[in-house]
Amino acid sequence: MAMDGYRGFLGLLVSALLVGFLSVIFTLVWVLHYREGLGWDGTALEFNWHPVLVVTGFVFIQGIAIIVYRLPWTWKCSKFLMKSIHAGLHAVATILAIISLVAVFDFHNTFNIPNMYSLHSWIGLTAVILYVQQLFLGFFIFLLPIAPLSLRAVLMPIHVYSGLLIFGTVIATVLMGVTEKLIFSLKDPAYSTLPPEGVFANTLGLLILVFGALIFWIVTRPQWKRPKEPNSVLLQPNGGAPEGVESAMAINFGSMGKSDSELNNEAEARKRNVVFDEAAQRSTM
Amino acid sequence: MAMDGYRGFLGLLVSALLVGFLSVIFTLVWVLHYREGLGWDGTALEFNWHPVLVVTGFVFIQGIAIIVYRLPWTWKCSKFLMKSIHAGLHAVATILAIISLVAVFDFHNTFNIPNMYSLHSWIGLTAVILYVQQLFLGFFIFLLPIAPLSLRAVLMPIHVYSGLLIFGTVIATVLMGVTEKLIFSLKDPAYSTLPPEGVFANTLGLLILVFGALIFWIVTRPQWKRPKEPNSVLLQPNGGAPEGVESAMAINFGSMGKSDSELNNEAEARKRNVVFDEAAQRSTM
Repeated sequence: MAMDGYRGFLGLLVSALLVGFLSVIFTLVWVLHYREGLGWDGTALEFNWHPVLVVTGFVFIQGIAIIVYRLPWTWKCSKFLMKSIHAGLHAVATILAIISLVAVFDFHNTFNIPNMYSLHSWIGLTAVILYVQQLFLGFFIFLLPIAPLSLRAVLMPIHVYSGLLIFGTVIATVLMGVTEKLIFSLKDPAYSTLPPEGVFANTLGLLILVFGALIFWIVTRPQWKRPKEPNSVLLQPNGGAPEGVESAMAINFGSMGKSDSELNNEAEARKRNVVFDEAAQRSTM
Repeated sequence: MAMDGYRGFLGLLVSALLVGFLSVIFTLVWVLHYREGLGWDGTALEFNWHPVLVVTGFVFIQGIAIIVYRLPWTWKCSKFLMKSIHAGLHAVATILAIISLVAVFDFHNTFNIPNMYSLHSWIGLTAVILYVQQLFLGFFIFLLPIAPLSLRAVLMPIHVYSGLLIFGTVIATVLMGVTEKLIFSLKDPAYSTLPPEGVFANTLGLLILVFGALIFWIVTRPQWKRPKEPNSVLLQPNGGAPEGVESAMAINFGSMGKSDSELNNEAEARKRNVVFDEAAQRSTM
């Protein structure tokens, strides 16, 4: 299926994948080369799984899960399949995020370091809890065919907003975590002298921020949205989601190549107020 | 002018103002009660202007500047007036952000603390530079009546995206700054024992995050967008901004109460491909 600005999309997608992949590699190099390495023994080796799993799962995989509907090669796949992939990727990210929490709690408990005192931990744990809630709500309301269309329509804008808010919050939390770790670990030479590890981890922070920025650009471009399912009567409910909003635009564009009679029929349909709850409709299989 | 979901908007606006105001108050209490107070002598008293000015200008005022077009009481004001207020608030935020940088550089230089080593400083300075660039580009391209409509149309989506990206980045940077300050300052009792100042400043971080979340919700609801200017022929250019996207939705809703002839005329107009660059048109006076 054709996509407007396909080459631009491709360029940004490749950039996002590259920067995301690089972020994971940088995190691995950080813990394997600059820090103690990886292990599962309650020591710093176990703590080091925390950044690795967070950046891999909670940043990279979550980012990909967010834009998965926008890959034009998937537009011929069923909406149900794509929803399953979307939910599956988020589920993998959730599992990695939870294991990353276990790693840091284990490490703290081994060394009698208090848990949950820092702003990083407060916001990070909140983000994980909201993410799990988002996953369950998404599963029961949008993936399983049990929720009424009206409920889906009301919740879709909140689902989209919450998802992006959690993703942005996770990135902010990662940047706080990098800051914390560098201040705690870099003593001789100190972080303030900007040793190679400081430059390296700061660069990692920038990479993660750029990854987030690319995902946000890709997911908010109306022209790169998965086209609406065929055979649906589309009029946008008031207060629709970005998803709905973009579809509304698609209607306008869609109508530009049509015949008079088609357009008149469209007008008639609107006149009769055949308002179909599009956000809900789109969330069905 | 009527606004859909006015009471919801009002509730969220009041919440945002309250939480934003509370963030400023919390920052003042932090530096005046828990820290050394305020002054301009190169010591910690001068450093303390850094959080105060950042939270006041770069968070609170920037947040208000972002949503100022959405206040329904301003919809009867000219677009030029609203643009001037939008630009004016951002200019005030810029000045406060720059003074906040002077404060922290002065403090560092007095005590021979290196500048620009932390991830907080890297991302924070980048955000200030991009913010100044955004202000100048916005002034010359969207406020002054010199840029061609086509240029405005191309740049409007980037302007909107960049603005929100910078705002989100500023909030992430503030959270890093709070984290840094608490780790550096809370030694006896340590931050890890979660003394009252730790709880207080962590709460400040949460307030700032909630303020950002409220601003993002308000600014991304299509139904709360300033209505398009009258007498404009509207068809959405490809790849339009969220601004444009939402207008496209307004067209659909607008058409639902119209007569057949009006709708047919609309259809005819579309058929003739009278595509007016709406994003650009909206950015003129």
